[in-house]
Amino acid sequence: MTRIFTGITGLDEMLEGGFLANKIILVRGGPGAGKTIFSLQFIAEGAERGEKGIYVTLEEPLNSVRETAASLGFNLRNFEEKNTVKLVDGSQSVYRFGEETRRNYDSSKPVVSQIASQIVAEAESFGACRLVIDPITSAIIHQRFPTDKRLEILELMKSLRKIKCTSVITSESSSPSEDEFFVEEYLADGVIILAQTLRNFVVTKTIRVEKMRGTRHDDQPRKYEISDKGLVAFNTEPVIV
Amino acid sequence: MTRIFTGITGLDEMLEGGFLANKIILVRGGPGAGKTIFSLQFIAEGAERGEKGIYVTLEEPLNSVRETAASLGFNLRNFEEKNTVKLVDGSQSVYRFGEETRRNYDSSKPVVSQIASQIVAEAESFGACRLVIDPITSAIIHQRFPTDKRLEILELMKSLRKIKCTSVITSESSSPSEDEFFVEEYLADGVIILAQTLRNFVVTKTIRVEKMRGTRHDDQPRKYEISDKGLVAFNTEPVIV
Amino acid sequence: MTRIFTGITGLDEMLEGGFLANKIILVRGGPGAGKTIFSLQFIAEGAERGEKGIYVTLEEPLNSVRETAASLGFNLRNFEEKNTVKLVDGSQSVYRFGEETRRNYDSSKPVVSQIASQIVAEAESFGACRLVIDPITSAIIHQRFPTDKRLEILELMKSLRKIKCTSVITSESSSPSEDEFFVEEYLADGVIILAQTLRNFVVTKTIRVEKMRGTRHDDQPRKYEISDKGLVAFNTEPVIV
Amino acid sequence: MTRIFTGITGLDEMLEGGFLANKIILVRGGPGAGKTIFSLQFIAEGAERGEKGIYVTLEEPLNSVRETAASLGFNLRNFEEKNTVKLVDGSQSVYRFGEETRRNYDSSKPVVSQIASQIVAEAESFGACRLVIDPITSAIIHQRFPTDKRLEILELMKSLRKIKCTSVITSESSSPSEDEFFVEEYLADGVIILAQTLRNFVVTKTIRVEKMRGTRHDDQPRKYEISDKGLVAFNTEPVIV
Amino acid sequence: MTRIFTGITGLDEMLEGGFLANKIILVRGGPGAGKTIFSLQFIAEGAERGEKGIYVTLEEPLNSVRETAASLGFNLRNFEEKNTVKLVDGSQSVYRFGEETRRNYDSSKPVVSQIASQIVAEAESFGACRLVIDPITSAIIHQRFPTDKRLEILELMKSLRKIKCTSVITSESSSPSEDEFFVEEYLADGVIILAQTLRNFVVTKTIRVEKMRGTRHDDQPRKYEISDKGLVAFNTEPVIV
Amino acid sequence: MTRIFTGITGLDEMLEGGFLANKIILVRGGPGAGKTIFSLQFIAEGAERGEKGIYVTLEEPLNSVRETAASLGFNLRNFEEKNTVKLVDGSQSVYRFGEETRRNYDSSKPVVSQIASQIVAEAESFGACRLVIDPITSAIIHQRFPTDKRLEILELMKSLRKIKCTSVITSESSSPSEDEFFVEEYLADGVIILAQTLRNFVVTKTIRVEKMRGTRHDDQPRKYEISDKGLVAFNTEPVIV
Repeated sequence: MTRIFTGITGLDEMLEGGFLANKIILVRGGPGAGKTIFSLQFIAEGAERGEKGIYVTLEEPLNSVRETAASLGFNLRNFEEKNTVKLVDGSQSVYRFGEETRRNYDSSKPVVSQIASQIVAEAESFGACRLVIDPITSAIIHQRFPTDKRLEILELMKSLRKIKCTSVITSESSSPSEDEFFVEEYLADGVIILAQTLRNFVVTKTIRVEKMRGTRHDDQPRKYEISDKGLVAFNTEPVIV
Repeated sequence: MTRIFTGITGLDEMLEGGFLANKIILVRGGPGAGKTIFSLQFIAEGAERGEKGIYVTLEEPLNSVRETAASLGFNLRNFEEKNTVKLVDGSQSVYRFGEETRRNYDSSKPVVSQIASQIVAEAESFGACRLVIDPITSAIIHQRFPTDKRLEILELMKSLRKIKCTSVITSESSSPSEDEFFVEEYLADGVIILAQTLRNFVVTKTIRVEKMRGTRHDDQPRKYEISDKGLVAFNTEPVIV
Repeated sequence: MTRIFTGITGLDEMLEGGFLANKIILVRGGPGAGKTIFSLQFIAEGAERGEKGIYVTLEEPLNSVRETAASLGFNLRNFEEKNTVKLVDGSQSVYRFGEETRRNYDSSKPVVSQIASQIVAEAESFGACRLVIDPITSAIIHQRFPTDKRLEILELMKSLRKIKCTSVITSESSSPSEDEFFVEEYLADGVIILAQTLRNFVVTKTIRVEKMRGTRHDDQPRKYEISDKGLVAFNTEPVIV
Repeated sequence: MTRIFTGITGLDEMLEGGFLANKIILVRGGPGAGKTIFSLQFIAEGAERGEKGIYVTLEEPLNSVRETAASLGFNLRNFEEKNTVKLVDGSQSVYRFGEETRRNYDSSKPVVSQIASQIVAEAESFGACRLVIDPITSAIIHQRFPTDKRLEILELMKSLRKIKCTSVITSESSSPSEDEFFVEEYLADGVIILAQTLRNFVVTKTIRVEKMRGTRHDDQPRKYEISDKGLVAFNTEPVIV
Repeated sequence: MTRIFTGITGLDEMLEGGFLANKIILVRGGPGAGKTIFSLQFIAEGAERGEKGIYVTLEEPLNSVRETAASLGFNLRNFEEKNTVKLVDGSQSVYRFGEETRRNYDSSKPVVSQIASQIVAEAESFGACRLVIDPITSAIIHQRFPTDKRLEILELMKSLRKIKCTSVITSESSSPSEDEFFVEEYLADGVIILAQTLRNFVVTKTIRVEKMRGTRHDDQPRKYEISDKGLVAFNTEPVIV
Repeated sequence: MTRIFTGITGLDEMLEGGFLANKIILVRGGPGAGKTIFSLQFIAEGAERGEKGIYVTLEEPLNSVRETAASLGFNLRNFEEKNTVKLVDGSQSVYRFGEETRRNYDSSKPVVSQIASQIVAEAESFGACRLVIDPITSAIIHQRFPTDKRLEILELMKSLRKIKCTSVITSESSSPSEDEFFVEEYLADGVIILAQTLRNFVVTKTIRVEKMRGTRHDDQPRKYEISDKGLVAFNTEPVIV
């Protein structure tokens, strides 16, 4: 089976060589965990290998994403000019559809289904084989009930399964106990958790492959750092604190 | 009483030889616990013994299930051609009925009762003696209230009791405290819990037979691994961490 | 005062000789705790002493109850033929009334009050002095609000107080923090808790008499086992783990 | 200031001699903590001193209360005949008013205000100086919202402040975190907590005077036992477990 | 800046000499923590210094407050006659407005805004420079939603900021996690927490200045006792248990 | 990239020299954590460097803010006269819009969007390059549902992104588990947490940079003190307790 290199130092080794092609990977973590950095490394890794990638931001402005990329040494503009990377600002659509949902609650259509078709069309016309949606959380905050949030995500997953892309979706959630985000994890083919554990006034950062359909994987948490080369996972070392 | 071999190395020994025939077994676990792998081993074990099995997926696409089976060395296609295994994609029905439920909340019919009759008919016409529904969670996420979720499951259980099948139903839930999933456990004849405990940055995987009507069983948690032969339970060893 | 032997080895000693006659005892425990086995021992003990007993199952099919009894060496059919034990399947009534409640929420009548009169009539015409309702949980899951669940149980308790029976009611609940089940415990004359504590990957089973009106009792938890003779309480030993 | 002897061995010493006259004391505890026994000792202590007492049961039948009293060596019938104790069964009123509340939710009147006037009238015409209401919990379970439960209790407290009685009100609640019972504690003049702490499979019973307006008191928890003489507090010993 | 002596032995030293004039101080604690005693010491300290004080009780009857004061050696009647202290019973107003709120929920006006103007008028005409409202909790229990409770408190704080009084407001809440009481703490200029920590069957009483705008303060918890002289804080000693 | 000095001793060193220009920084902490002091140091630092700053208070009166500044040795009046600092009292607008929201719930407009345009206009006409909003919590307490609170914050963030200001927004929340405040953290470019941990009766104050887009930062909590020079972070020392 084709392996898709993740671009994260140390992570491919935890995954028997990388992601499986055309799977949907959820990357979950709290504020500051490095989800956007993870996503950028995934896209840049592809770009350097000639695998076209689309980066859909549902929250951060495009320029802020480009700045973060630059701080990691990735020249996104360059990739964009070469037509190997495309940045899409989905935040306006999400906001507009979301506002409609809020105001006309009872007659609302799922926000995600409206943007999912746009994303799918973009990905197909661009010929992308890597896709990032960062973060999915923005698309569902307009919904008042957990049930409706779940259905939003279900819609998105269904759409993404129609295209030939390996997708990374980020999720802003540090606590797994909130059942409204739970559905993301079981609908995705893979789940990677970036945890920042605060214990006795020390923060420990760990990356864990919680789930990865169709491949064996290291199931233990491993320390990671955010350096000027992005996320680096220390996959061969046990976590000692 | 007839014993149905589970197909999980080490588990039959925890169950005085296997499941009792015609019982409904709930297999509960969080993301990545191996519920689909468990289910496939159960079906493959039957297929190798000439016991026909139906595998109803309510979430994952059929091809993804076949891939997972292949990674365990099970050739599902082969079993399908020999007519000993039948894969059923129930996800479309679940989705369609669920969407109706969501949109016409007050006049909704239970989602499950609509697919349960299809499943029962399939099982009877195929002559199945093993049945898997993976995961039941998908069928109930459209319901907003715990009460209605419970009734969905009650409906399904009632239907399954009419046919001569040993059934494995998987449930996506890592926390037993959510009372909305609780009903699954007391309506089922047996409950097996696949737990992934994260403590001090180490994950420990344990399998526990929480309940098994009509038979004695090992009631202690036991370690398990997911190897390239599927789930393996270390039933004779205590869990030391 | 007349003592009613419980049928559970070791439990009578914790109760100064047994239950008091005509009291309502709640037996609470999670899945697999042995509530049905407890109930069957209570009925069988009576049957062997010529005390007529009615066993009302609100969830499990009659045959499944008979199988469980058989696995403990109790021949229920034999007792039924001798007219000392009567099995009643209340699950259909519960289900039908419950479904009405769900569909016509605002005009609903309590589910329990409709079956309670049937149970009382059965008990009186049969001349029962022992009664089991297993589990009460089934009768209340159709109610959406805790308040209504509480009133269902209140109704049942009021009905049972009219007849001359010592009653055992089982309750599916492992966590005492859910306030919706709390009312069961304070309306009953006695409460026995079957706990399965999972600590450091070891399950410990303990039985505790939480409350028993009108009699002194051992108020400490004691270990119990489920053997082929049913529940056995080790009442003279402290719990060491 | 007049001290009212509590009737509980060891408790008067924790209270500088007893309750203050005409105060409202809340006794809170979970199932089996001994609230009814506490209440009976309080009434019997008064009866033996010629202080008339009224015992209003909102839940348990009168005969069951009399049995419990008898098991402690108190002959309530005797006191009733001498006209020093009066037992009042308020459960029917509570139930009837509660049922009305449930069925006609929006136009409901507080349940308690309807029975409070009866209780006050009884207490005045009987010339009671001790009053027990056991348990208050029954009067408020018909209310769906915490706010309404609080107002029920507020109503009752207001009524009781009009009469010259020292009142003991019991409350069925083991967890102080449920904010719906919180109001009881701050509206009462005194709060006594009967705790049953389960730790490492051992139950420890402790009595604590949480609050007592207008008098100093021992503010530490003390062990207690329920013997055949009722509750006995070991007020001079620290709790060692 | 003018310092207002608190009247609590040891507390002025934790506050660089006392409260700042014209600030609003919230005193939060559970049942029995000594909030009323604290408030009385604050008023009596002022009275002895010729600083007029108003004590508004929203819950306890005036006579009960006077009794508590007497038990501390404060003769409130005396101060009242000298016109340095005024006791106001706001409980009737709170109750009447609250009842209206409950019955006419949708058209309700904030309860507090209706009594706040009365309090402000009283304080101004009396020339008070110290004000106590004990407890604020009573004014907000009629509101069903946390949002409305918050707005009640916001209203009160706005009113109090118009007058030249140093105000102590007590709040019945032992747990800071209830977000409905949270707003009190951030709207107030100062927050003092009276905690009663129950650990290993021993209660430890601690006082902590959580917040005090415009002045430095001891930010550590200190032990306190309730003696016959009222609350005494041991501000120079660490808490050792 | 331009660095904006924070004004907090020790914090610039944790941030590779300071905030990045034009970013939105959330400062979260409970009562008494020092959020207003932090904000004042940020504004004063700019004022001393000739960087104009606007301080919008949504809760505390202007004079109270000026007093706090004075206690730190900052003469805000002086800065105001020199036209380098502008104080804006937004509390009245917030209150008025909020009250409308509460009373006309269904037709309500977001409170924040109405004041955000005012703030943006003020900032632009004043030529501010530093902006403080203290605290954002006040603007959202009128909303009953978490979803609506989130959208309020989303509105504000969108508005602030249009102007060339480095913004500090404070948030009154000590517990990160309340999901209604969570959105603040992921919408902001940076999150700084001021924690006051109470353990074993000792409070430890720590500052942590949870997230800072576009720059590397010290990700460990560090002790801080509130002295008469404001917050001082001890960035080179580990937290030992």
